Amino acid sequence: MPYYIGDVVKEEKRMIARTPEQFAKTGVDVKLNTEVETVDSDNGLIRLSNNTTMPYDMMVMATGSDAFMPDIPGVNRDGVFKLKNLTDAIRIKTFLTAKKCTKAVVVGAGCIAMEISEALTQRGVKTQIVYRGERPVRRWSPEFSDMVLEELTAHNVDFITHETPVAVEQGSDAFPLRLVTENSSLDADIILFALGVKPSTALARDMGLAIGSSGAIQVNFAQRTSREEVYAVGDCCEAFNRVSRSWQSPLLGDIANKQGRVAGATIGGHAMSFPGFVGAQSFKIFELDVGITGLTEDEARIHGFDPVCETISGTPIARSLNAGEKLKLKLIADRYTGKLLGAQAAGNGGAVSRINALSACLWSGITIDEVGYIDIAYSPYYGGPWDPIHIAAQSLGRKL
Amino acid sequence: MPYYIGDVVKEEKRMIARTPEQFAKTGVDVKLNTEVETVDSDNGLIRLSNNTTMPYDMMVMATGSDAFMPDIPGVNRDGVFKLKNLTDAIRIKTFLTAKKCTKAVVVGAGCIAMEISEALTQRGVKTQIVYRGERPVRRWSPEFSDMVLEELTAHNVDFITHETPVAVEQGSDAFPLRLVTENSSLDADIILFALGVKPSTALARDMGLAIGSSGAIQVNFAQRTSREEVYAVGDCCEAFNRVSRSWQSPLLGDIANKQGRVAGATIGGHAMSFPGFVGAQSFKIFELDVGITGLTEDEARIHGFDPVCETISGTPIARSLNAGEKLKLKLIADRYTGKLLGAQAAGNGGAVSRINALSACLWSGITIDEVGYIDIAYSPYYGGPWDPIHIAAQSLGRKL
Repeated sequence: MPYYIGDVVKEEKRMIARTPEQFAKTGVDVKLNTEVETVDSDNGLIRLSNNTTMPYDMMVMATGSDAFMPDIPGVNRDGVFKLKNLTDAIRIKTFLTAKKCTKAVVVGAGCIAMEISEALTQRGVKTQIVYRGERPVRRWSPEFSDMVLEELTAHNVDFITHETPVAVEQGSDAFPLRLVTENSSLDADIILFALGVKPSTALARDMGLAIGSSGAIQVNFAQRTSREEVYAVGDCCEAFNRVSRSWQSPLLGDIANKQGRVAGATIGGHAMSFPGFVGAQSFKIFELDVGITGLTEDEARIHGFDPVCETISGTPIARSLNAGEKLKLKLIADRYTGKLLGAQAAGNGGAVSRINALSACLWSGITIDEVGYIDIAYSPYYGGPWDPIHIAAQSLGRKL
Repeated sequence: MPYYIGDVVKEEKRMIARTPEQFAKTGVDVKLNTEVETVDSDNGLIRLSNNTTMPYDMMVMATGSDAFMPDIPGVNRDGVFKLKNLTDAIRIKTFLTAKKCTKAVVVGAGCIAMEISEALTQRGVKTQIVYRGERPVRRWSPEFSDMVLEELTAHNVDFITHETPVAVEQGSDAFPLRLVTENSSLDADIILFALGVKPSTALARDMGLAIGSSGAIQVNFAQRTSREEVYAVGDCCEAFNRVSRSWQSPLLGDIANKQGRVAGATIGGHAMSFPGFVGAQSFKIFELDVGITGLTEDEARIHGFDPVCETISGTPIARSLNAGEKLKLKLIADRYTGKLLGAQAAGNGGAVSRINALSACLWSGITIDEVGYIDIAYSPYYGGPWDPIHIAAQSLGRKL
């Protein structure tokens, strides 16, 4: 009989089963609000926090990831949140409404920080982002993060750079919280830490499972860990990057879903292997859609490639129909093999569409010359007869 | 010195050179409004309509295609147009304004007929489409053409089926033109024939160039015809379909552009080869975007495949954010190899984006199992963690 241990199911609206009773009907025994204390892997026995034990033949580790929280005073104050799971989202929404929040501080400048800043602004909450670096979404090249920054500014979101939080304190009469940074302080109704996540591997380490250089649990293509009866899926484990040919910790929800299905099918007797990922990622910030795939120049260098790149400014649809919408596209290729290595795009529509087509190109490892002539569905509403993909690829090809 | 013979350049706004004088500065001698009467290919000599001759070492045939016009009385009446080139567009626009047209009849139901119907409706011109068949855009499966039909109806465009034009006559006092069909008649201010195009090969046939089974000029991957000094590009010649592994007559502008560049580079001493196409095509009709790529089931059968297909109804963005927008996606795979053969999509956004990613999959010939796990940029604004592409591919995979 399969067991499920955790506390997320009860919040998920679309699952077939939500309560232990509903799960029981599907043949799954669900232990909610129960922690695994230790695993005796030699004897296939789990000891739970309620002091009972549970036997297993096969185990799937799906411990996910933990949100980074800075080790500073005051982060446990009422109104300070991390951004990790659905429980956080529900608590934040409840707090925003109950306290009639009008001002928020977001710490961090990744995709999730961008998305929460948009969501807060659209609720009428004045938002200030505090970041230790210079530009948002640092995986993207400056020409794209500058576009994101412009979009934030155009929508009245403050972006405060080069500041590291040192404490959360009581605020003023107007705003109950104060984020103290090295050089300044910001008052707010709510403070949100969006500093990314790290694989949750404590239990795996206790069990002696091999941990990869990325810090996540090592798995093979069937999602099996270093112990043959233990599988791992999702943020807690590594995944194979098809472009860099290396195991990484991508920490993305779509990859987690795919790994879960591979492990489940394999354990169920239908052997499957996870084909890997290429590094596709996207987010929307107000009127701008932003995407990335494959390797950045830095990532390419780390993995032994000699990256050559080209950035072009174009339009998401044919120029004759375009009403000022912008699209910027960067392609990165390897000097020696001519292969496409990565792409970045931002625009008023059409950026993620291009990134997805290029992700499919990366999947099979085609050359930049082929990308320059790839067949995509031409129609003026979706691009010119020479799409920005073709223009960028041909221009890059001339540099090789 | 390169020569250019034709009459299109003078209307094209974005070319570097428009007039013979401007072209002369670029080193190209342009003969506008000049026809080629005959080609003496054994002696490399062209005889022009102004009774002069021109020598050549290399020739590029770019004779394009001719619009189908029915051989019925009255098609030369004022207010009857074909839809082929920029000159037609300018004449139609001028006529619509000058005659204050309020009612149009469009004959034909392909992509161009759809686009002109939208354009007319958006100008406030009541539009009736007359078609000899049952559904619009017959390359698409009925589940998609039905969506197109609903979109036409929702925007007050009449779609009159099973009618073949037999004559254009003088109309009533209210409308000067009348399209008489086998069973009916329709009065209008303007009548537009959008019945598709066929390769223009008269000159090539006169020269004895090999013509392919598609009816277009045979070329190799360098765009060279059966005579080594003669190249052909665009609608007049064939192109290689990477999915069916056959030479076809795609008659699409983006392919024409690519072939032109391949021929130009090759003649200029930089040998290139045209890598082929996969059959990607798209159009927009009001709020619906519609795309297709690869082979249809019928096309797959003709080329010796055993097509298995699956159609799913989903949403273009994550369900949690979706405000009722629809997306329908059909995938077609080969039963024996498991390879993706084709895709069709229609939706309120997101359809062409999926078709382009799937076109890139077809480019490299990957299997439906891989399509089911392909890495595309997940974010709720662009889809769920399982994209409709994954859902359709996995569902299809279970049928193989």
